[in-house]
Amino acid sequence: MVEMLVDGQPGESIPADDRGFLYGDLLFETIAFHDGQAPLWAWHWRRLRAGCERLGLTAPAEDLLLEECRRVAVGKRCVVRATLTRGSGGRAYEPPVEPACRRIVQRRAWPSDADRFRQEGMRLVTSPVRLASGSVIAGLKHGNRLEQVLAARHCAELGADEALLYDAGDRLVEAIASNLVIVVDGRALTPSTDSAGVSGVGLAWLCDQPGVALETVELTAREVDRADEIMVINSVAGIRPVTAVDDHHFAIGATCRAWQDLWDAGVEI
Amino acid sequence: MVEMLVDGQPGESIPADDRGFLYGDLLFETIAFHDGQAPLWAWHWRRLRAGCERLGLTAPAEDLLLEECRRVAVGKRCVVRATLTRGSGGRAYEPPVEPACRRIVQRRAWPSDADRFRQEGMRLVTSPVRLASGSVIAGLKHGNRLEQVLAARHCAELGADEALLYDAGDRLVEAIASNLVIVVDGRALTPSTDSAGVSGVGLAWLCDQPGVALETVELTAREVDRADEIMVINSVAGIRPVTAVDDHHFAIGATCRAWQDLWDAGVEI
Repeated sequence: MVEMLVDGQPGESIPADDRGFLYGDLLFETIAFHDGQAPLWAWHWRRLRAGCERLGLTAPAEDLLLEECRRVAVGKRCVVRATLTRGSGGRAYEPPVEPACRRIVQRRAWPSDADRFRQEGMRLVTSPVRLASGSVIAGLKHGNRLEQVLAARHCAELGADEALLYDAGDRLVEAIASNLVIVVDGRALTPSTDSAGVSGVGLAWLCDQPGVALETVELTAREVDRADEIMVINSVAGIRPVTAVDDHHFAIGATCRAWQDLWDAGVEI
Repeated sequence: MVEMLVDGQPGESIPADDRGFLYGDLLFETIAFHDGQAPLWAWHWRRLRAGCERLGLTAPAEDLLLEECRRVAVGKRCVVRATLTRGSGGRAYEPPVEPACRRIVQRRAWPSDADRFRQEGMRLVTSPVRLASGSVIAGLKHGNRLEQVLAARHCAELGADEALLYDAGDRLVEAIASNLVIVVDGRALTPSTDSAGVSGVGLAWLCDQPGVALETVELTAREVDRADEIMVINSVAGIRPVTAVDDHHFAIGATCRAWQDLWDAGVEI
């Protein structure tokens, strides 16, 4: 079964003049497929299309991209990374006036520890890597991910499951590969991604569910200390409780378990 | 004549699982070659090696990389982009513990307007694209360059030659593909790249020249308004006077012309 397509053709490489490689001039989506279906496709597509508008990329036809993802998706569960680059050409940083965007879809293995993390929770550390703030590309799932690479490297060295990322101004932003929800005083709070971070598809799906009330607010370490529950969420691994941040331990709460039930019913169908 | 080498082998593409493509997990140098020689090699190498330490990449042997660059360099003047990626592997953002870094050297055309800009100067605009501040990767020439791509796109739409970039906190940082020097009240000033921007090789060379006194300070739009001279510098196009920023015009000054003479004597040999 073919593992990767470049503009619809089987392949294993990309042209070395692709602007995605040269400058990180790309958007991507990491999409969970269950028996050939992507339950969160509508949310992925919405973010990708919005990202294309902000970066000035021409979005492909939705049906075409979804069909290509399906061609590489195999088995009961897998992940497909769908990448849209600004293609080749231009004058150094300056892009071509009418870029021919390039589509790359690649199959990935399902994360082996996702099920365990959903059940047992995750141990987090506070990352020493601060995210730059005031980013004009904040919220997008773009190809400029060196901050996440450095944070993941440090997190692995410490043997933690994930890490909390703050920005340069001590505002809480997200985890390395997930968004955050903090339950405190009966309110479910999530940090804004207007200045740094990724506006996640798992979180967007959750916010769209009837009965789910999530407030986007500015958060700091104070709310982490006071939290009754902390959880992380992304579109592939789903909703996972946080049982520790550094030396501070947290119980797995009722909100997390209720939302996991919603997820199981609505996404992992 | 071969135009590109991947780990020393002629090629035109890179593996699609290269972390440089997936996450911008790479460093690069854009190196001017004159008759097969790179006068600023020592400064490029110093920055690349420092970047490797900060990102946890294993630097290649200096002789090997320089030799590969020379193999693709042709003619009286050309540019070679030398890229060092973290290679393939790892678990998503998390890099492999011992990455096998990948070297890519690619020949590029000499910028056609560099000579004219040196003589006649450049017209700049103030970019609406603000650089994120407090970046842990500030100063490095890494592969996360979407801010520059967006700024270059806007600059081209306005028909300007270059653009001034401020950060989210209104601090002046650099031009899109050059560092900045502002002469005001008899002092030559350049903005810090500790929080955003690239620590340029052309500027580093200039600072190392006897008799050149450059102060690194915090700069805002006020100093631009008060400037007696403004110039931009990068390692390929050299030192170019700025004759306008938006509607504000500037004369080409004696400092710029004196440093251009230094450049001509020391670099464009």
